[in-house]
Amino acid sequence: MLITLTTDFGLQDPYVGIMKGVIAGINPAVEVVDLTHGIPAQDIMACALTLRYSIRYFPHGTIHVAVVDPGVGSPRRPLLIECDGSFFIGPDNGLLSLAVGDETPAQIVQLSNPAYHLRPTSVTFHGRDIFAPASAHLSLGVPLDAFGERVENFIRLAIPEVICQGNEITGEIIYSDNFGNLFTNIEEHDLTGRPGKCFEIVLGKIRIAGVAPNYAAAGAGDLVAVINSWGLLEIAVNRGSAQKRSGAMIGDTVRVIGLT
Amino acid sequence: MLITLTTDFGLQDPYVGIMKGVIAGINPAVEVVDLTHGIPAQDIMACALTLRYSIRYFPHGTIHVAVVDPGVGSPRRPLLIECDGSFFIGPDNGLLSLAVGDETPAQIVQLSNPAYHLRPTSVTFHGRDIFAPASAHLSLGVPLDAFGERVENFIRLAIPEVICQGNEITGEIIYSDNFGNLFTNIEEHDLTGRPGKCFEIVLGKIRIAGVAPNYAAAGAGDLVAVINSWGLLEIAVNRGSAQKRSGAMIGDTVRVIGLT
Amino acid sequence: MLITLTTDFGLQDPYVGIMKGVIAGINPAVEVVDLTHGIPAQDIMACALTLRYSIRYFPHGTIHVAVVDPGVGSPRRPLLIECDGSFFIGPDNGLLSLAVGDETPAQIVQLSNPAYHLRPTSVTFHGRDIFAPASAHLSLGVPLDAFGERVENFIRLAIPEVICQGNEITGEIIYSDNFGNLFTNIEEHDLTGRPGKCFEIVLGKIRIAGVAPNYAAAGAGDLVAVINSWGLLEIAVNRGSAQKRSGAMIGDTVRVIGLT
Repeated sequence: MLITLTTDFGLQDPYVGIMKGVIAGINPAVEVVDLTHGIPAQDIMACALTLRYSIRYFPHGTIHVAVVDPGVGSPRRPLLIECDGSFFIGPDNGLLSLAVGDETPAQIVQLSNPAYHLRPTSVTFHGRDIFAPASAHLSLGVPLDAFGERVENFIRLAIPEVICQGNEITGEIIYSDNFGNLFTNIEEHDLTGRPGKCFEIVLGKIRIAGVAPNYAAAGAGDLVAVINSWGLLEIAVNRGSAQKRSGAMIGDTVRVIGLT
Repeated sequence: MLITLTTDFGLQDPYVGIMKGVIAGINPAVEVVDLTHGIPAQDIMACALTLRYSIRYFPHGTIHVAVVDPGVGSPRRPLLIECDGSFFIGPDNGLLSLAVGDETPAQIVQLSNPAYHLRPTSVTFHGRDIFAPASAHLSLGVPLDAFGERVENFIRLAIPEVICQGNEITGEIIYSDNFGNLFTNIEEHDLTGRPGKCFEIVLGKIRIAGVAPNYAAAGAGDLVAVINSWGLLEIAVNRGSAQKRSGAMIGDTVRVIGLT
Repeated sequence: MLITLTTDFGLQDPYVGIMKGVIAGINPAVEVVDLTHGIPAQDIMACALTLRYSIRYFPHGTIHVAVVDPGVGSPRRPLLIECDGSFFIGPDNGLLSLAVGDETPAQIVQLSNPAYHLRPTSVTFHGRDIFAPASAHLSLGVPLDAFGERVENFIRLAIPEVICQGNEITGEIIYSDNFGNLFTNIEEHDLTGRPGKCFEIVLGKIRIAGVAPNYAAAGAGDLVAVINSWGLLEIAVNRGSAQKRSGAMIGDTVRVIGLT
């Protein structure tokens, strides 16, 4: 059994370690993997995207705990969602929704049973007091209904939609990674069947001719577009940072033009 | 059996990984959890506070290794302390003292037996050469007395004291986390029985009315005071950084006034 | 069985966590240790040095995966090297060569068998699609020859050589750690038999008299030279950063003069 942790806690403080201590105290045998704790503070969308594109690489049955939780301590609901054989635990603020995607969850439970909370329960750290204990008890086989009452709905985020019109696709930057690679919401299949060099990718003043087979197809320091490991159109600089080069921000428009 | 690691090594270099390699070479079965490696360089007090407020979340019998060690290689003593069923390993510079608190340790041993040191022993990395091996051998059941001679005392730090006078409490900032939340040394019980809105919290030019039930009770970007996950009065900004807002530093005075 | 991971991915993104998910999906029982993910982006030499000085602290038979891979997706070869009872997996760009050192590998295999790749295989993340799966299958006992054809050679880097001439040694800075300690390529044995205080270490305008027994032998904030945990001559500042003090960069010359 595997538990993953994804948060905006960073690694400066002991918060992640404390969650692992709580889990180990309940189920010493469960393995815990950090997906990342580098989500920008309070950036629910970045965390939701991270989960969406990561969970497929984890074994069936994995329990994914995500905590980006500006509403901690308020009435926002703590949830446990079972979907497609995996489990998602976190606050009901949209965080878990892009991982669930269009699937209909098998079950959604509100983590309201105090028997599975740490006592006393703080108002600032439900990762420690509610979400970590729930994941550990779940990994021991506690049935979902024990954690609280079933609920029907949860807050869903939407990835901005790509607009395909005539010979042009309009999308936007949705994620920027540590290398400064700029991820768009344009998926590989949006470009399918279009020959590689017959269109341009436009971001502000930047124009890139077609999709390259890899970063190294461009010269060192040159801009390049690739289909990246999330299956998305990405603007990069070979051995450099496209984010620094372009100054682009999340939400900036990217167009693919001259499609033939 | 569980070993935790807490250091100021950061994660840029392989130092933490090397300690885990040493431990795995001695006891492949022991689980190692990073509490944090983000303690500011040489900040013994920050590490001592981190341990103090974290160890209660780990199982009985956990071995806590802490290395913030500006005196490495000098005659400062490497220690192993057993206290309240847990174990603490690190240099004798106060690092372990706030975790022990007012308890009387069951045993304190100086890690002087070279049979449990890595050879050759460097003068710059006792985390690798002395502390990691000690934790791994201890996890295998080596008795404490095998590691070296018993000692009676160790260096103790003190958390700055809170002054309660009339209808005013004077404390200070003792920790600032990655979110820019400012932790004071004022504990929840210092405020016990005082109704929420009947006093003000003062930090420099900042005045906050009472303790809120959670961050989200304030508007986005607004200052708020809460009792945090360490049981301490904390000054925060909902979805923002109180540290950036206030420019406050560790040691700055915080007053609670107008108590009735 | 133990797998280590060393990359320039940083910890902001989920890339490292995804590699662990892939490994856990193939061999849930294998332990994974992060050596570091803080290698500067695309810095092959820094990663090669990190491996060289770290692997001796891991158990015999450990599988070391290293991914600093600016040529990902290009024809550069993915390799698996067996040497001295340990295993090294990564791109053929010199990354693995300083760990192998002067040893002759028992076997070198190109990871060309698609049966051990994740499908579809991206052009940007072979850590996930080729290197992580190879390490996990290898940890299950898959024989080396199953992964692809044997190859005879691989790209080798060289640590800059130290020049010893008369009573002077000329070396250079090869690594700077998170504390700002400056590692030279001058090894302890280059200085062997020379009494501690009879020479000076020169870096730009900085002159340090001899090698000290430890950092704390210098006053707080003072420059000091020590033999560090990698067995190298290091220039440091007690409780400070020699990198910030000196502004020194990788490649800057360090001289040891007046040897008698």
